[in-house]
Amino acid sequence: MTKTLRVGVAGLGFVGAATVKLLQNQAPLLRLRCTRDILVTAVSARDKSKDRGISMEGIKWHDNPLDISNDEHVDLVVEAIGGSDGVAKEVVEKAIANGKHVVTANKALIAQSGTILAEDAEQSGVALAFEAAVAGGIPILKVLREGLSANRIDGVYGILNGTCNYILTCMRETGKEFEEVLQDAQKLGYAEEDPSFDLDGIDAAHKLAILSSLAFGLKIDFGAVHVEGIRHITLLDMEFAQELGYRIKLLGITRQSARGIEQRVHPCMVPLDAPIAHIEDVFNAVVVHGDQVGTTMYEGRGAGAGPTSSAIVADIVDIALGRFLPAFGLAANDLKTSNSLDMLERVASYYVRFTVIDRPGVFAEIATALRDNNVSMEKIIQRGRAPGEPVRVVLTTHETKEKAILKTIQAIDQTDAVVEPTRMIRIEPSVFLS
Amino acid sequence: MTKTLRVGVAGLGFVGAATVKLLQNQAPLLRLRCTRDILVTAVSARDKSKDRGISMEGIKWHDNPLDISNDEHVDLVVEAIGGSDGVAKEVVEKAIANGKHVVTANKALIAQSGTILAEDAEQSGVALAFEAAVAGGIPILKVLREGLSANRIDGVYGILNGTCNYILTCMRETGKEFEEVLQDAQKLGYAEEDPSFDLDGIDAAHKLAILSSLAFGLKIDFGAVHVEGIRHITLLDMEFAQELGYRIKLLGITRQSARGIEQRVHPCMVPLDAPIAHIEDVFNAVVVHGDQVGTTMYEGRGAGAGPTSSAIVADIVDIALGRFLPAFGLAANDLKTSNSLDMLERVASYYVRFTVIDRPGVFAEIATALRDNNVSMEKIIQRGRAPGEPVRVVLTTHETKEKAILKTIQAIDQTDAVVEPTRMIRIEPSVFLS
Repeated sequence: MTKTLRVGVAGLGFVGAATVKLLQNQAPLLRLRCTRDILVTAVSARDKSKDRGISMEGIKWHDNPLDISNDEHVDLVVEAIGGSDGVAKEVVEKAIANGKHVVTANKALIAQSGTILAEDAEQSGVALAFEAAVAGGIPILKVLREGLSANRIDGVYGILNGTCNYILTCMRETGKEFEEVLQDAQKLGYAEEDPSFDLDGIDAAHKLAILSSLAFGLKIDFGAVHVEGIRHITLLDMEFAQELGYRIKLLGITRQSARGIEQRVHPCMVPLDAPIAHIEDVFNAVVVHGDQVGTTMYEGRGAGAGPTSSAIVADIVDIALGRFLPAFGLAANDLKTSNSLDMLERVASYYVRFTVIDRPGVFAEIATALRDNNVSMEKIIQRGRAPGEPVRVVLTTHETKEKAILKTIQAIDQTDAVVEPTRMIRIEPSVFLS
Repeated sequence: MTKTLRVGVAGLGFVGAATVKLLQNQAPLLRLRCTRDILVTAVSARDKSKDRGISMEGIKWHDNPLDISNDEHVDLVVEAIGGSDGVAKEVVEKAIANGKHVVTANKALIAQSGTILAEDAEQSGVALAFEAAVAGGIPILKVLREGLSANRIDGVYGILNGTCNYILTCMRETGKEFEEVLQDAQKLGYAEEDPSFDLDGIDAAHKLAILSSLAFGLKIDFGAVHVEGIRHITLLDMEFAQELGYRIKLLGITRQSARGIEQRVHPCMVPLDAPIAHIEDVFNAVVVHGDQVGTTMYEGRGAGAGPTSSAIVADIVDIALGRFLPAFGLAANDLKTSNSLDMLERVASYYVRFTVIDRPGVFAEIATALRDNNVSMEKIIQRGRAPGEPVRVVLTTHETKEKAILKTIQAIDQTDAVVEPTRMIRIEPSVFLS
């Protein structure tokens, strides 16, 4: 039997503790799979006295997480501290420099510094693995890097944030507005006290940047991701969506086209007949389109102790078996710089909702703005005709440039007929979603 | 750069030819991924003169496929001949004996002889890989073996045969009976001229046996799979299914319980709110339940040149990178013999449709048979009350042993009221399908 793989875990929050527990509880199965033992030999956390339900037998405690990366009795460091910078990054850098493998669920760190860390790991001859960073327990990075390795990937999109999906599902099912559902979700622990990273799309964008890099062999470029969150989604738009045959989902989308790489996270109108429209609650799903395999979809829980530690330990097993690849599938030298497509150049269909006062000439002003910007309308719905009540005018467009739709909205918003901020939601073409 | 991996392809039917083409067309991408070249150096097929759209430059032609396994300029043999025995098996055995890696899409061969071949491969120090044998391009074997390696798998089920799923979808959508839809499917190439392997569930059972072995670390045991096909499914039962909130799907199901391992392929009533109820047409889907990750689902095209060659080449890439594992995830010695659960001992709910003449006492006879066998009814529907017309009595049961439901049906069938064969379809509990 090969010698024991010794694991140090930096950070014993809910991910770190679950990882230690899983390695301890599943030891017999893992020994069979790896034909060697995997042993937790060192841990570090803020509060030594806290009971985490972990057996500390044979485990060395370090007050300073950096000492895990310097511990000569550690072969592999699990970074479970979190954050794109600071201690988490130092722990990873130091571990790699000291020739230790690194496994992490830290999407922020990888989205910001993944390429450099991958290069460092390659030079040190160690693994840098982060399956748990994207879509929780769904092994989507392994699928892209290995399972679909014979394909040129055309596009990847998915529901990458469970909190947002839960809130959107609840709004639709309960008929409550965003703020109320958010408070419920916070009480249930489905949303954090400060939920900005989730609600504003940042968390999904971190994951999307990682998917994009793996799918297309690119140096990771988080700055190139266009990001919008779900705070402005209203029940009214959900009702119109239903009427038009759509469901509103926060999607992360990355596509490769002749014009460049698209990377974007924003609410979408998704056709009801697309399978991803039916991924509800905290579930995540990722759709991959490859030139050989066609469309495949991967679905499961995107967060939680079980799924996250499942992914972390799967990475550890691969490393224990000596089966690790470059972090982004290709040697760091072979990763290309992304030629990112300007959002304004995106060509697609749009949902726009105007709220206007009901006076003669309003429709003409809207029609003029559409014509002036060469935007062609597909459908129009109008609601609210009680005296004095503002009128909702909802329209969907045929394919047009984003630049044109923004100019159209701007022109209409400048008229005095508009009484509430105009809402625009992008429609994702079902041809890519099928 | 490591030296070239030389591939011999035995059989140039639609899978073999697609594999050669993919290796040739995707060579630059594969070179990047593998940091070595993968080259087709030998092929064999029946008809040398046939144009398959393949460049034969640098490729040696063998009239006898066995010569591929003896060719000293071949490191890896792709077996694309098919069949559980005969030449295909000889080619694989000879290749392994000669220290060559083997990649195949041959589910029949693996379901029948997988354990022995895996043992041989292990002893020869070569890979035996068959990702393409199950669910086409969906990398479900990699997911089970590697992506979910930290989990104890409780159960796996799926739509494993695209032809059956296509026929069931068409029946429901067009309102045509089985025979007519089958003829259409044959014209479109979605069903073979002799479709028995697909329609009778054998193909799905081969795949299920492989999934079961990988999920639970078992010696493969095709004989233990209970197999039923879809030939007896009628529109009438589809209509009742819809009314009761189900959809009829041919599922392969394997579960581990204290009482033993279940392996079965048969039509199921699947609750409409289960995601797998909405996998339509030729698509395949596999649901895996692991103790850490919970429920995950994998969906894509289960057949076709693109998906199949995508999976074959992914296996080749893994081997080119030296990243191969024992075929069933564990060393052959560690595979257990399955303790298979007798179908008669299965506890679940059932859909039963009786066709009876409308005379006093019929209901009492049915009720008596249910009582005598301790079967408790959940719902009952009755249809057809025109004079002289037989009456359809449909009932669903609460959980009961299969033995009890079969005895009940037998008792009722012995009365002279029954005028058509009684139909029974198993209801898959939504708790496992959620």
